[in-house]
Amino acid sequence: MKLKNWGEDPFIEHVKQLFSLKKGLVGIGDDCAVIPTKGTRAWLVTTDALVEGIHFLKEEIPPQELGYKTVAVSVSDMAAMGGQPLYALLSIALPSTTECSFAKNIMKGIKHACDHWGILLLGGDTVGSKRDLFLSLTLIGSAQQHRIRYRHRAHSKDSICVTGYLGDSGGGLKVLQDKIALTNNTRYLLRSHFHPQPSVEQGLWLATHPEVHAMMDLSDGLDCDLRRLLKQSHKGAHIQTNQLPISPPLACVGKKAGWDLLQLALTGGEDYCLLLTVAPGAAKKLQSDFETAFGCKLFCIGEINSNPNKLLYYNGKKQIQTPYTNFSHF
Amino acid sequence: MKLKNWGEDPFIEHVKQLFSLKKGLVGIGDDCAVIPTKGTRAWLVTTDALVEGIHFLKEEIPPQELGYKTVAVSVSDMAAMGGQPLYALLSIALPSTTECSFAKNIMKGIKHACDHWGILLLGGDTVGSKRDLFLSLTLIGSAQQHRIRYRHRAHSKDSICVTGYLGDSGGGLKVLQDKIALTNNTRYLLRSHFHPQPSVEQGLWLATHPEVHAMMDLSDGLDCDLRRLLKQSHKGAHIQTNQLPISPPLACVGKKAGWDLLQLALTGGEDYCLLLTVAPGAAKKLQSDFETAFGCKLFCIGEINSNPNKLLYYNGKKQIQTPYTNFSHF
Repeated sequence: MKLKNWGEDPFIEHVKQLFSLKKGLVGIGDDCAVIPTKGTRAWLVTTDALVEGIHFLKEEIPPQELGYKTVAVSVSDMAAMGGQPLYALLSIALPSTTECSFAKNIMKGIKHACDHWGILLLGGDTVGSKRDLFLSLTLIGSAQQHRIRYRHRAHSKDSICVTGYLGDSGGGLKVLQDKIALTNNTRYLLRSHFHPQPSVEQGLWLATHPEVHAMMDLSDGLDCDLRRLLKQSHKGAHIQTNQLPISPPLACVGKKAGWDLLQLALTGGEDYCLLLTVAPGAAKKLQSDFETAFGCKLFCIGEINSNPNKLLYYNGKKQIQTPYTNFSHF
Repeated sequence: MKLKNWGEDPFIEHVKQLFSLKKGLVGIGDDCAVIPTKGTRAWLVTTDALVEGIHFLKEEIPPQELGYKTVAVSVSDMAAMGGQPLYALLSIALPSTTECSFAKNIMKGIKHACDHWGILLLGGDTVGSKRDLFLSLTLIGSAQQHRIRYRHRAHSKDSICVTGYLGDSGGGLKVLQDKIALTNNTRYLLRSHFHPQPSVEQGLWLATHPEVHAMMDLSDGLDCDLRRLLKQSHKGAHIQTNQLPISPPLACVGKKAGWDLLQLALTGGEDYCLLLTVAPGAAKKLQSDFETAFGCKLFCIGEINSNPNKLLYYNGKKQIQTPYTNFSHF
């Protein structure tokens, strides 16, 4: 059997079983691994890879944006656990035919992103590659142990919230693929695609609120990522499709181009905002405090229930079918 | 200009300048980065990438050996600083056409290696790849701060020592390339190539000896790696070529096949033993204690001097020219 027939999640499940950990250590299956220290803090560690032809096209992405994105995707994982990013290590495999200026600009983008979040790049490995460009960044951060938020802590009747618009990055990708003309709206979508804004401050802030039970970042699309959270929590969910936050630019461009906005919001991927569950009755106050703190909205989109792994979509009381295929690496 | 014209070390130097660190943190340019803690210990972190077509041929390397090697090369970096390996994160990019059994066997090899050195694999990232297989492992370890050994601490008149034979892995690669028949000797060389033995115990032991000044592991060949140590220490060196340790199997196979053994010993690469410098007059006692502790030899091969970056080879009193080209990734 080939990996494309087996699928990404079953392979990861296999690896998770193979490397099962003793109690007290959180490893494979959450946004970061957690290494407790003797004190009250813990180290958080996460690794993310970006591969040419899979995560980016060398001809499409400006090299500085590629460098920035390499850092941003790991920073988003750190934000999802409520951690403060601190140190990074970079593995980079470059074909020897790469233009020096291209390689330098990748590093410039990485430097810019590291400076932006106060991260020190401590080292890594620079190697050749026969054909494709590979980047892998390991990010080390820290958090108070009791503040770390996991995927497996969702409770029944928790509200389900997201910290940003859904589908903008996916919309940006479609602008590229369909070669749609540049306007302020399409530029906004392209920027969301190339220059994601991880919710570090929001993650740290949310982690100080005990009513926030479970948290993760949205990288592969709401449908795919929420299923992962539900699986880890042994819970189910109802999502109200009319409450999914769609940005005005996406609504405008998508309407003109005839895009399926629900599909984009659920499966577009690379949103890099946070998905969280909030104790019953606590969402309203949290939404209001969040808006005061950050000047932008915390969107409530549904509710957790006790039916393991059952994810249903409703428009009001009417159930909606979502025959979309989620992203899989294989 | 292309990277192949610029070279690997100048690119790394550029990155090092870009990410220069404040005092107290050791980053780019040594085997591991060092993160001090409030106590007497420090964290050591290192990342190594293995790329198909550059570090291995998928058709030649058994997948379990590839998994093992992915861990071993980072463990060797940890050993070089006198650190104890503890935790690992893995980035793996696999084409979707990869056989599941191949992917599973890579993971089996990683598991075997992690168990062997008491390392816990805490997580990572599994992604697709269009063509090439790419592996990157981050290893986290720890050490007493005062015991950590660096590349930049070589002193004039220090003895230069290595903990193992040189050129065996390079010999194994030549056995493969030249399709030389299998004998006990060629099997030994192939095993050195596929299954390197990092010197973790030796590194920890050497780090307890204050007479050991500088240390690094040999990954790109003695000539290349020693030049790096000299550069960091602002020193030069004389090497006695007749004291370079050549294993009996390499001597035997190499003689028959007409190999240049000196070239293999200096530039073969992937030896993964340790290169260290020892305080003047202290080498004899250290050699004897090392042999008692580990049942194998510590080889003295030359001496550090104060001529920055000057590496000369001698056979007795006669200077030897070594017109070899070192490995470069670009």
